[in-house]
Amino acid sequence: MVQSNPMKRNFADRLIKAIQQKGAPICVGLDPRLEQIPSFIREEKIAKKGRNFEAAAEAILDFNKGIIDAVHDLVPAVKPQFAFYLQYGFSGVRAFEETCKYAQEKGLIVIADAKCNDIGSTAEAYARAFLMSFNCDAVTVNPYLGYDGVKPFIEVCKKHGKGIFVLVKTSNPSSGDLQDRITEDKLRNYEVTAHFLESWGADEIGKSGYTSIGAVVGATYPDEAARLRKLMPHVYFLVPGFGAQGGTAADVKQCFNKDGLGALINSGRDIIFAWERDRNERDFGAAARAAVIKMKKALS
Amino acid sequence: MVQSNPMKRNFADRLIKAIQQKGAPICVGLDPRLEQIPSFIREEKIAKKGRNFEAAAEAILDFNKGIIDAVHDLVPAVKPQFAFYLQYGFSGVRAFEETCKYAQEKGLIVIADAKCNDIGSTAEAYARAFLMSFNCDAVTVNPYLGYDGVKPFIEVCKKHGKGIFVLVKTSNPSSGDLQDRITEDKLRNYEVTAHFLESWGADEIGKSGYTSIGAVVGATYPDEAARLRKLMPHVYFLVPGFGAQGGTAADVKQCFNKDGLGALINSGRDIIFAWERDRNERDFGAAARAAVIKMKKALS
Repeated sequence: MVQSNPMKRNFADRLIKAIQQKGAPICVGLDPRLEQIPSFIREEKIAKKGRNFEAAAEAILDFNKGIIDAVHDLVPAVKPQFAFYLQYGFSGVRAFEETCKYAQEKGLIVIADAKCNDIGSTAEAYARAFLMSFNCDAVTVNPYLGYDGVKPFIEVCKKHGKGIFVLVKTSNPSSGDLQDRITEDKLRNYEVTAHFLESWGADEIGKSGYTSIGAVVGATYPDEAARLRKLMPHVYFLVPGFGAQGGTAADVKQCFNKDGLGALINSGRDIIFAWERDRNERDFGAAARAAVIKMKKALS
Repeated sequence: MVQSNPMKRNFADRLIKAIQQKGAPICVGLDPRLEQIPSFIREEKIAKKGRNFEAAAEAILDFNKGIIDAVHDLVPAVKPQFAFYLQYGFSGVRAFEETCKYAQEKGLIVIADAKCNDIGSTAEAYARAFLMSFNCDAVTVNPYLGYDGVKPFIEVCKKHGKGIFVLVKTSNPSSGDLQDRITEDKLRNYEVTAHFLESWGADEIGKSGYTSIGAVVGATYPDEAARLRKLMPHVYFLVPGFGAQGGTAADVKQCFNKDGLGALINSGRDIIFAWERDRNERDFGAAARAAVIKMKKALS
């Protein structure tokens, strides 16, 4: 009963084409914290549905559509973070599904940020869920379980022109607890993951020279990013941690190759909740658009 | 809008009480592969709803209820694997939610197997989703992001009497890719995770002497399990890999402490699809019950 996707073009090629068309390696993080969604949207839904998950989910969807309308001609991709939807039960998951669909209708590439992982047949179920049932273009994946937890995702990527971004060096303060440990090969764990990735993606290299098996590399660790850029020349980086988490334009520079490609910089809060800084809440779309334009300038 | 749970008793204490009442450290994995669900259930739903996700989700829920009815007086816990539900979209997530609720109504402890993880505020959203919105008793968590990816889960555990099981040494063939690397402290990565866990759970030790911050330790690696049992004397193990994946009763013995406690052994396929071996599909519940009784004998 799982839908299949006829689109088989290599994901990395599709992503690069979209980045070049928009002239901006920017991904907008759709992380809808309910309490930061303009109150006029929330109140309308609560009046209609009551104070429940369905109202929350509908408010999230309306808000996301407003953001997508405001930025879709400026950026190549959006990244909805799954947990922010899942916390509102199946209604929230429906809002996630409809957000993904709406973004794709507006020509955007959709990266599901789920950080999922499991063994063999269960990893396959996660891959089917995000890349086929929800029809996202890519999904983020955790590498702690090793190759057989990632391989089922790679197979779906191959068959259906999809992509994954595997967590390598994450942007959070304690990412080093495990990721920075030095192993018997004198490599840190994140470097071990990087070596795996460069080989796991070898079959999935597109015409662009990049593979559809990408990496998550935090903007908050520029030295590590520079090292990883050399270790994984063919791997595209999805870079969280820009803006609110502290990563600057100078920091993310390390994530690009000399060809000006190789990285997609994500920004969530700074864009979608830009209205909180200086605008009327009804202008949340215009505020998001202005924030994207500002980020575009900072990066170029 | 998130429901809160008044139940504040320590999760480890609740789990141990349930294990002792049932006289079996057994968890039934509710991993409903649609193609293995008796055809009479699937066909009834397809006739009613059509060949779609809603029919799949309803078939899964009916099947799960049949399994729960057949085994709830024999075992303390069930573990639905989230990906098997999510692949049928929001309808699948509704079946997940209703499965959890039904199991709890029958007195079972529900462990959501989601292997989730994220940074700070997003990890908090995952914790809220599984432990509050879906009201599960515990959830499995991936440690690759370090302490600040796990802490938000621990805080929900503290406040609401819930538990987590952190992936330490997983049961799959390539779990060693990262988990077995030897780090600068001469510890393997899974041992590093084990040391973290023993300390992360220190505040959550119940009257039983065990903490609500548990570990996932695969039955397929008995030597590693024996080492981990010593490294984490206060940590409860959730043990996948018994049966279909190759783990035996002798293997899982390593996961128990001398007090006869310390491990909850999971079995999925061998129990829920036991009907495939020798029974009429309409007897799937009776076949599952017989499989649990057989497993109980093997373990005792």
